[in-house]
Amino acid sequence: MNLIVLKIGGSAISNKNIPFSFRKDVVEHIAKELTEIHKEYNIILVHGGGSYGHPIAKAYDLSKGLYAPKKQLLGFSRTRYYMSKLNLLIIEEFIKYNLPVITIQTSSVITAKQGKIYNFYIEPIIKLLSLRMIPVMYGDVVIDEKKGITIISGDDISTYLAIKLKADKLLFGLDVDGIYSKDPSLEDSELIEILDISSFTIKGTMTKYDVTGGIFHKIEKAIEATKHGINVYFFNITKQGRLLDVINEKGTFTKLITG
Amino acid sequence: MNLIVLKIGGSAISNKNIPFSFRKDVVEHIAKELTEIHKEYNIILVHGGGSYGHPIAKAYDLSKGLYAPKKQLLGFSRTRYYMSKLNLLIIEEFIKYNLPVITIQTSSVITAKQGKIYNFYIEPIIKLLSLRMIPVMYGDVVIDEKKGITIISGDDISTYLAIKLKADKLLFGLDVDGIYSKDPSLEDSELIEILDISSFTIKGTMTKYDVTGGIFHKIEKAIEATKHGINVYFFNITKQGRLLDVINEKGTFTKLITG
Repeated sequence: MNLIVLKIGGSAISNKNIPFSFRKDVVEHIAKELTEIHKEYNIILVHGGGSYGHPIAKAYDLSKGLYAPKKQLLGFSRTRYYMSKLNLLIIEEFIKYNLPVITIQTSSVITAKQGKIYNFYIEPIIKLLSLRMIPVMYGDVVIDEKKGITIISGDDISTYLAIKLKADKLLFGLDVDGIYSKDPSLEDSELIEILDISSFTIKGTMTKYDVTGGIFHKIEKAIEATKHGINVYFFNITKQGRLLDVINEKGTFTKLITG
Repeated sequence: MNLIVLKIGGSAISNKNIPFSFRKDVVEHIAKELTEIHKEYNIILVHGGGSYGHPIAKAYDLSKGLYAPKKQLLGFSRTRYYMSKLNLLIIEEFIKYNLPVITIQTSSVITAKQGKIYNFYIEPIIKLLSLRMIPVMYGDVVIDEKKGITIISGDDISTYLAIKLKADKLLFGLDVDGIYSKDPSLEDSELIEILDISSFTIKGTMTKYDVTGGIFHKIEKAIEATKHGINVYFFNITKQGRLLDVINEKGTFTKLITG
């Protein structure tokens, strides 16, 4: 059975400007659409931290590594706690729709080296998939062999798993329609429907819109997956029906192609 | 630095007769005492399921393995969900006391074979300890190579880790004072202060009190640890001060000895 890896953007399921806000309505319609998709595909879900993970990780400066252990290790505990809280809110909705979801907790299975995934214990994920269950992961703080601790994003995890487990599709669910030619809030910004990675370069006008979404890191990861033959899409997961549509290559999205 | 593995019994932190009951007061004084103990020891915590895990695992008959996947896999999801909820309630109290706790989620790192731990990915636990953090685990449903799924108890996990990581002490925190000569509710039942494992046999009069606590499984596991040279204690963790006392071999408890 073909595998879909779906990254649910933190900005799609929470309002990044309001700490601990949760967009239950978005998660609910994702759950509804997944019940359809799960009939034909194996699924791995990965969600971001949104307004649960980012503010705390930032307050304790966790992405810089461990330079003030006493304070930062409590920040590690606190970030882990709030990410679990967000994860449970999501799981709660999925269970209501009878999706057989099982969270695989990030810092239990991943260790990093210099901010990149170094070890990833994926055996339980493979076995859960073989039982037709839906593993759920999320971006989180993990142990780093060099820096002490680091942050591994949901984008890193979803790309890693899509490549490792030879996914058919890797979907990045955003709160905008896809990748734009420049900051989507600008009037002359245009959606890029087909993004040819062989000729793609980041233009100066695009850089402005990296601030909140880490969109260039997403594109970098997406390019990596595309080179491994995976079909990669960016789409607006906050709009009802779009998830089902993109699976069938219908509607509005950005698709990556090579040459 | 010496290692202590503390198993916090599910019946100590919840009322097993009331679904989803949480004894916050007990967890709070455990947290307070751990802040003292953590100054001199590395600590691993393992908690049971109490009235969060057991009723659901039982309703879906999960300990029998996977014989009705469609229904039971949802039971797997639901048990996992409620165990995470209980775990978060505990973590919340520990964080208030600035304990650097990190949950290592059981089904992410353990797979079983015929109901016994088969693979256990312990690298992150070792690294967390080297950073002086406090890994927290709990009994939960896991993948079983033969049965599909099974339950691995907090007793199994704490004993496995105590032996593997050569703990100095393995403490079983109960809602009674230790191991009794027979069902502790009987009038002529007596606390066994020193339990000599070389001459210990389970008497008919003891069997009655296995129903709720799984005490014989605990004793079996405790004997295994004792044979590996670990100091094993059973004590009443619901009573304030007892945890600190047992570390110093003071007060009321059952200690296991060999010959």
